[in-house]
Amino acid sequence: MQSAPSIQKLLDELERLPGVGPKSAQRIAYWILNTDSASALRLSEAIAEVKATVHFCKRCFNYAEDDLCEICSSEKRDIHTICVVSEPRDIPPIERTGVYRGLFHVLGGALSPMEGIGPDDLHIKELISRLGSEEVDEVILATNPNIEGETTASYLARLIKPLGVTVTRPASGLPVGGDLEFADEVTLSRAFETRRPL
Amino acid sequence: MQSAPSIQKLLDELERLPGVGPKSAQRIAYWILNTDSASALRLSEAIAEVKATVHFCKRCFNYAEDDLCEICSSEKRDIHTICVVSEPRDIPPIERTGVYRGLFHVLGGALSPMEGIGPDDLHIKELISRLGSEEVDEVILATNPNIEGETTASYLARLIKPLGVTVTRPASGLPVGGDLEFADEVTLSRAFETRRPL
Repeated sequence: MQSAPSIQKLLDELERLPGVGPKSAQRIAYWILNTDSASALRLSEAIAEVKATVHFCKRCFNYAEDDLCEICSSEKRDIHTICVVSEPRDIPPIERTGVYRGLFHVLGGALSPMEGIGPDDLHIKELISRLGSEEVDEVILATNPNIEGETTASYLARLIKPLGVTVTRPASGLPVGGDLEFADEVTLSRAFETRRPL
Repeated sequence: MQSAPSIQKLLDELERLPGVGPKSAQRIAYWILNTDSASALRLSEAIAEVKATVHFCKRCFNYAEDDLCEICSSEKRDIHTICVVSEPRDIPPIERTGVYRGLFHVLGGALSPMEGIGPDDLHIKELISRLGSEEVDEVILATNPNIEGETTASYLARLIKPLGVTVTRPASGLPVGGDLEFADEVTLSRAFETRRPL
């Protein structure tokens, strides 16, 4: 394919994005070529700006533009609860539910002996130190319901319980609106084991 | 969702791209946030560069970085044939086949009374003028095989034939490797009507 070098360069960079194959890269590149310059430059600048201004919150390791993230610096949050998650990307879905008003703590991953990720590679020291300096009553371990997430949650529970802080984990079970017929065995087993009286 | 303003701005810009919904925008935004700065800035700069350096070829209206596009300025092309297409994006798939070594002419759209696109809105005058000044033996009308493309091809054929230039159109028919059983009626009818002796 014979195309201008700058178009080829753009295609190469676009194809590196997650979920963007050669076809989507081409569609996006043509959109960029056809759109007005102002519009394309807004995208270009939004990418550069996010890299220049966003870093990790000094307290909870969420993405932040200032020293503290929007959640840590809000005065409307319940400072007595910390929800522990693996990655910053886990925070927006929890925020969207609207049921949680406490603070967060981002570990920056999950324990994985397979990938050589141990406790020192995660922000666990910082979590323990927060439990010492802040007035925390409950830690919700919202790591993913997979092997690494469960391992991390067990590890943290053993570490935190002796400090006299309540440790909880969101329920695993059948998705609301789902069909029992189509539930996988592990989820269904878990749902039965953790059944609750009505 | 409470996220840093610069992240929200990036998400808004990403969602405007074709084929990118809220979920993909988020996945791409997190990739940009997590990747090294150099890598993200290469993308940002590739977008800005393409808008700064790419314009339309003065001869054929393909994308070009110089006055002429890579194809028009190549000395290896057969200058006696012009393949007419609707958009610059139609050129790469034809180039990839490797069977065509002539020049191109991009109309910048197709005739569409519905959308109010008439002959004066396309680069038709420029095509006719090329037929006068260049040594062209054949014009291949490779507009899309849909209503607008067929209309445009018929219009151009009527215009060009009197100039003594051979006018052709790529065959419509069954896709190679496809199943006759699953062919749509229009394609199958066309394939029968244009059947050829073996």
